[in-house]
Amino acid sequence: MSTVKVIQVNQNIHASNDIAADAVRQMMTENHTLFLNFMSAPGSGKTTLLTALINQLKSDLRIGEMDVDIQSSLDAKRVADLTGITSLQIHNGGLCHIDADMTLRALLEYDIADLDLLILENIGNLVCPAEFDTGAHKNIALLSIPEGHDKPLKYPLMFEVCDVVIITKTDVCDYFDFDMQKAAEYIHRLNPDARIFSVSARTGEGMPALCTYIRELCTNISIS
Amino acid sequence: MSTVKVIQVNQNIHASNDIAADAVRQMMTENHTLFLNFMSAPGSGKTTLLTALINQLKSDLRIGEMDVDIQSSLDAKRVADLTGITSLQIHNGGLCHIDADMTLRALLEYDIADLDLLILENIGNLVCPAEFDTGAHKNIALLSIPEGHDKPLKYPLMFEVCDVVIITKTDVCDYFDFDMQKAAEYIHRLNPDARIFSVSARTGEGMPALCTYIRELCTNISIS
Repeated sequence: MSTVKVIQVNQNIHASNDIAADAVRQMMTENHTLFLNFMSAPGSGKTTLLTALINQLKSDLRIGEMDVDIQSSLDAKRVADLTGITSLQIHNGGLCHIDADMTLRALLEYDIADLDLLILENIGNLVCPAEFDTGAHKNIALLSIPEGHDKPLKYPLMFEVCDVVIITKTDVCDYFDFDMQKAAEYIHRLNPDARIFSVSARTGEGMPALCTYIRELCTNISIS
Repeated sequence: MSTVKVIQVNQNIHASNDIAADAVRQMMTENHTLFLNFMSAPGSGKTTLLTALINQLKSDLRIGEMDVDIQSSLDAKRVADLTGITSLQIHNGGLCHIDADMTLRALLEYDIADLDLLILENIGNLVCPAEFDTGAHKNIALLSIPEGHDKPLKYPLMFEVCDVVIITKTDVCDYFDFDMQKAAEYIHRLNPDARIFSVSARTGEGMPALCTYIRELCTNISIS
């Protein structure tokens, strides 16, 4: 007979860095710079999506990109090489997240007034980054088709704190048992207001709607 | 001109729980129970692989399984339902890892002497679980084809602490730009002794070699 037993081995941890996050957000708003925080598991396609996004938006928006990684500079270099924009690699020394204080230190490297859009590519992790408000205007989670539609149930905080969920790698839909309807249902159960986009950065499917959405956010910040 | 700049925003953290881990390992060895710790990113196919493995090994081995998750019991239930073995769900309260003390508390739920093999399905995360020795005899990392062959470069500690790397979802190889040779090169650069297996739990490709390897480890522990 199969059985399942559940035990609790630790208490939740919370780190409050809300004051620093609010300061970052206010500074960005005052500079009319939209600040977006992209989060996901490793290998969900953040760098590929951001490269495609930046290339589609850079003709009419001034864009900066910050990339958090443990020690490599692969992603920042890839974004810089493929888009021509300036990319900042942040090494967080083995931590599994970036918080608002770290964001603030990284922001000092930029002349924010010269940017319409600042993109943060957070570290590949569905747990820790969700716990720290970075000061971004919008939190955006990627969920790739190969990962499976059950991830919102298993990593609920990530999907609770996100304003937008982007389902990525839709070009490989046929090869995986990913149920788009169930994914949307699980996401909206945690977060009824979450906007959901489905895209393939490889084929371009779904990218126009996402670009339009980001342009609208930029317009709103620019007149705020 | 594209540029990349690197800044360091935090120091590495280390938590030493080596004494508890050694105690766990010694207890398991004395009971002739092989203890394996499976780690990977979310959606790499841990639960699917473990279910297939257990079903192939359960006729000649007495197997227990422990599943770590933040709050859901989906994986433990899936393993229990699909294999008929007893599965223990460990809720770690939002942490991104499990350490040796937590493992020890979970082990008390088992009659270890009745098991030949105990499997720990760690939380889906390529960062934190690598930092904590759980007391397992072998650390095993999964890397799925859709994630990309660059992950060892980006999450080096995970691949440094692993004795075995299992490349999963080989059935979808044709749809992704995954370079098997580069993956092996990156893994062995960090960890020259790492054993690498390539499997598809869906088609069964590569599973016999992995089962043989685990049976041999069990035999070695049983005569230790």
